[in-house]
Amino acid sequence: MSKNLTKRLEDYSKWYNELVVKADLAENSGVRGCMVIKPYGYAIWEKMQAELDRMFKETGHSNAYFPLFVPKSMFEAEEKNAEGFAKECAIVTHYRLKNDPDKPGKLMVDPNAKLEEELIVRPTSEAIIWSTYKNWVQSYRDLPLLINQWANVVRWEMRTRLFLRTAEFLWQEGHTAHATKAEAIAESEKMMNVYADFAENFMAIPVIKGLKTETERFAGAEETYCIEALMQDGKALQAGTSHFLGQNFAKAFDVKFANQEGKQEHVWGTSWGVSTRLMGALVMTHSDDNGLVLPPNLAPIQVVIVPIFKTDEEFEKISAVANDLAAQFRKMRISVKYDDRTTQKPGFKFAEWELKGVPVRIAIGPKDLENGTFEVARRDTLTKEAKSADGIADYVNGLLSQIQDDLFAKALQYRDTHITEVSNFEEFKEVLEGKGGFIAAHWDGTAETEEKIKELTKATIRCIALDRKEEAGSCVFTGKPSVGRVLFAKAY
Amino acid sequence: MSKNLTKRLEDYSKWYNELVVKADLAENSGVRGCMVIKPYGYAIWEKMQAELDRMFKETGHSNAYFPLFVPKSMFEAEEKNAEGFAKECAIVTHYRLKNDPDKPGKLMVDPNAKLEEELIVRPTSEAIIWSTYKNWVQSYRDLPLLINQWANVVRWEMRTRLFLRTAEFLWQEGHTAHATKAEAIAESEKMMNVYADFAENFMAIPVIKGLKTETERFAGAEETYCIEALMQDGKALQAGTSHFLGQNFAKAFDVKFANQEGKQEHVWGTSWGVSTRLMGALVMTHSDDNGLVLPPNLAPIQVVIVPIFKTDEEFEKISAVANDLAAQFRKMRISVKYDDRTTQKPGFKFAEWELKGVPVRIAIGPKDLENGTFEVARRDTLTKEAKSADGIADYVNGLLSQIQDDLFAKALQYRDTHITEVSNFEEFKEVLEGKGGFIAAHWDGTAETEEKIKELTKATIRCIALDRKEEAGSCVFTGKPSVGRVLFAKAY
Repeated sequence: MSKNLTKRLEDYSKWYNELVVKADLAENSGVRGCMVIKPYGYAIWEKMQAELDRMFKETGHSNAYFPLFVPKSMFEAEEKNAEGFAKECAIVTHYRLKNDPDKPGKLMVDPNAKLEEELIVRPTSEAIIWSTYKNWVQSYRDLPLLINQWANVVRWEMRTRLFLRTAEFLWQEGHTAHATKAEAIAESEKMMNVYADFAENFMAIPVIKGLKTETERFAGAEETYCIEALMQDGKALQAGTSHFLGQNFAKAFDVKFANQEGKQEHVWGTSWGVSTRLMGALVMTHSDDNGLVLPPNLAPIQVVIVPIFKTDEEFEKISAVANDLAAQFRKMRISVKYDDRTTQKPGFKFAEWELKGVPVRIAIGPKDLENGTFEVARRDTLTKEAKSADGIADYVNGLLSQIQDDLFAKALQYRDTHITEVSNFEEFKEVLEGKGGFIAAHWDGTAETEEKIKELTKATIRCIALDRKEEAGSCVFTGKPSVGRVLFAKAY
Repeated sequence: MSKNLTKRLEDYSKWYNELVVKADLAENSGVRGCMVIKPYGYAIWEKMQAELDRMFKETGHSNAYFPLFVPKSMFEAEEKNAEGFAKECAIVTHYRLKNDPDKPGKLMVDPNAKLEEELIVRPTSEAIIWSTYKNWVQSYRDLPLLINQWANVVRWEMRTRLFLRTAEFLWQEGHTAHATKAEAIAESEKMMNVYADFAENFMAIPVIKGLKTETERFAGAEETYCIEALMQDGKALQAGTSHFLGQNFAKAFDVKFANQEGKQEHVWGTSWGVSTRLMGALVMTHSDDNGLVLPPNLAPIQVVIVPIFKTDEEFEKISAVANDLAAQFRKMRISVKYDDRTTQKPGFKFAEWELKGVPVRIAIGPKDLENGTFEVARRDTLTKEAKSADGIADYVNGLLSQIQDDLFAKALQYRDTHITEVSNFEEFKEVLEGKGGFIAAHWDGTAETEEKIKELTKATIRCIALDRKEEAGSCVFTGKPSVGRVLFAKAY
C-alpha cells in the first residue's frame, strides 16, 4: 500500500494530499471546498475533542450552542469583524424550492420565498453570541461568562486543501465576557496556554507562543495570541489563536453591566479557537514516506496484533494468545485491535497499519509461541525486536509513553534547528529558500515593511514570541531601529 | 422563583415555554426560528449524546462528518426525499458581501458573487451521504457501512417552539448500507430498539415501538419505525425514527456492489435519528408546577448540598462536612454541587434547584451536625426526611436509582391509563377531547380516511404498534374492515 505514496522530498504537498486520502482520514466531497471526514480521521478528531473539552471544563468553561445563521444586520454590527469576513461568506437568501415548470423532476429556487433579511452562515460566532450576551449580563455578579461551543463554520475559501483550508470546517470557539480588562487578558493568555499544553502533550507538536502583528490579527480583536508550529517542509502552521477583544463587541452589541458601585460599564471579551486544521498539523509534523505516524495519546488504535500462521491449528493457538493479550491491554486502557482477517496476508496488514500510523504492532507466529516471545515493532522508528511474553503489557504501556516523548523530542529538535537568526535581507531570502523554517529577524514594526517582505518572499510574521529577548537592532529590510526579533516564515 | 411559573393545568403550552427559559435550558435567539441552547440545557444534551454515542459504538457504528451543504442537483436526485424537504429549506445563493454604496457602514449581497449552483443547507443528509457511498462501496466486502454523524440540520419551519420544532436543530443521523434487504431491515429494527432502550432507561420515558403509516413515513423511505411517547397533556411525541430505505437512495445515487458471485447489485439502506427534540420530551414527561424534574441518569447535577447557617463559625463547620460528603459522592461518580454561595438564602437556593430539577437535595444545618443527620429531599416527590450521616453516600446512591425507577413507573402508569380502545367515531372524539392520550381504533388502512380523521379532529396515526394483536374489526370512521387497531393521538 505505502509503495504508492509520493515521497516527501519529491513533492511534499502531493505526499500530504495523498496520505490524507489513503490513510482514510478525509476526502473531497461533491460540494465545492467541503470535505468528508472519514471514520478513521473522525476518530482522531474525537480524541482531540475529548481532551480539549476536558481541559476547557477544568478551566471553568461550559458548553452551549448558538445559531448557525447570523442576520446581515447583526453580522455588520462590529465593523472590523464584518469587513474581515464579508468577502468569504455563504449567504442564505431563500427558504423554499419549487418544481421547475420547464424541467420535469427538477427543482428551482422559489422566487416568492425570498428572505426579508439575508442570513450569513457563521464564519465565526462573535456577532450572534454577543447579541445574546446582551441579555445575559446585567450585573458584575453575572460575570465572568465562560462559554465554549463545538460547531461547524463556513468561510468561502477559493483554494482549499483537506483539513488545512476548507470551506466548511469543524472547530470549537470559546467566547468569554469579563468585568475587567486585566481579567480578559489573563483569560486570553490562559487559553493560549491550554492550546500549547494540548499541542505539546497530546499532539507531540512543539509550539511557539506569541502575539500576532496588527496585520495578522483577528478582525475585531485588540490582540491575538497564537501558537505556531513548524511542519517538516519548513513551513509554519498556526495551530490555535486566542483573542483579547477589548470592549469592541461589547460596544457593538451594547453589552453593559453594573459594577460593584452600581455604575454601568461595557464588558471585556475574549474568543479562542482550534479547528480540524489541527488534523493537518498532526499529519504533517510526524508522518513519513510510509504513511501516518500518530502520537499514542491521539491514536484511535494504539496497538495492533497481527497473527502469522499457515494452518488453522496455528491460527487457533495464536488467536487464543492474542485475545488474551488484547484483554490485558484493554484492562490497562490501551486501545488494541486484533487483526484476525483471514482474507489478507500479514505483509498486507503490516503495510496497512503502517499507513494508518498505529504506534505499536505486535506480530505473533508459531515460533513466538514456542519461544514465549512476541515481535514488537515501533511505527515511528520502523524498528522491531523480540520481547518476552512475560510482562509484555507493561512493556508496551511504557513503550507507548516512550514513543509519545520521542515524537515530541524529534519534532522539537527539528523545530529548534529551524529557527535561524539573520541580520540582513540577503540572508533572510537565502534561509527562506534554503532550509526554511522560522527566521528570527529584526523588523521596524510597520505594516508597510511587513507587507513588502510578504510581496517579495511570501514570508509573513508568524508571531512576536512571548519569550523573545529585548535586543536593539535594525530592521532587516529598512534598516530602521527595532527592539527585538520577530519570527518570519512561509505558512500554511 | 417557581412561584412565577404558570401551572400546567392552566396552560400547559405556556408552562412549557416558560419552564424551558426559566430553568436555563434554551431561549429564542435573534435569528428567526433558531434557538440558543444554554449551558444547563446543553449539559443535559451532552449526557444524552454520551450515552447514545456509546450505544451506537457498541452496536458497531463509527462516527464521520459530511458537508453541511447539498448542491441542488444532488438534493433533487432522490425525488420523494427532495419533494418532502423542498418546501422548507434554507438556500445559499451567494458567497460574498460587499459594502453597500448607498449606506455607509452597511453591507449588501454582492450580485457578482452568485453561485453557479445553489446549495441547500442540509435538512437531512441522505443525499450527500449516498453520493459519497457511491465511491466507498465496490464489493460485498465493503459492506455493511455503519456510520453515524452528529450534526446540525435546518428545516424552515414556520411555527417554531424551543426544542420541539426549531429551524435549526442538533441531532445524530445514522446512515447504513447493506448487502441484503433482510440485513437492512434488521438494522432499522435494531436502531429503533436502541432508541427505545435509551428513552426508557436513561430518559425514563416509556415508548411504544411501531411502524408509521405511508402518510407519516419519512420521504424516501420504504418503512419508518418509530418510538412514540406520551406527554402529560395527553399529546403524543415522536421521540425517534429509524427508516428502512430499501434501494431508493442506492438507485438514485447509483450505489452498487459486486456480490459474492461477482454480480452487480444495488445496496440496501437505512437511516435513523434523534434530535434535541428529546429535550422537549424530557421536560414534558416528568416536570411539574415547581419546575424541572430530571431523571438522575441524565441530570447534570444529581445531588445539591445546601448549608443552613447563621454565623461564620457554623458555615465553616458545615462546609467541612459538606465538602467531605461531596468528595464521597464524587468517588462514587455521583455528580454533586455544594452550593456555598453566601449571597443567597437557603429558601432561594431550594427554589432554584427545584426549578432546575436536581433529583436530590441535601440540607445541612447546625442541628444536623449535633444529631449526626442530614435532611434529604427528593425533587420528584417533594418529600424530605432526616437521614443518619452514617452510610449517607450509599443511601443517596440507592435513592438515585430509586428515583430513576419511580419516574419511569409513574410515566408508564400515566401512559398505560391513557391508551383507550374506542369502537366508534363519537367515542373517538370524546376521548380525544377528554382525557386525550393514545386512542386504539380500527382503521380501514387508507390514506384518505387517515386524512379525513386528521382534518376533523387533528389526530393522526402515531403508529401501528409492533406488538398489536391481530383482531378483526371495522374502521371507526368508514366501517370498512380492519385487521387490527392503530394508535391515534394529537401530537407535537
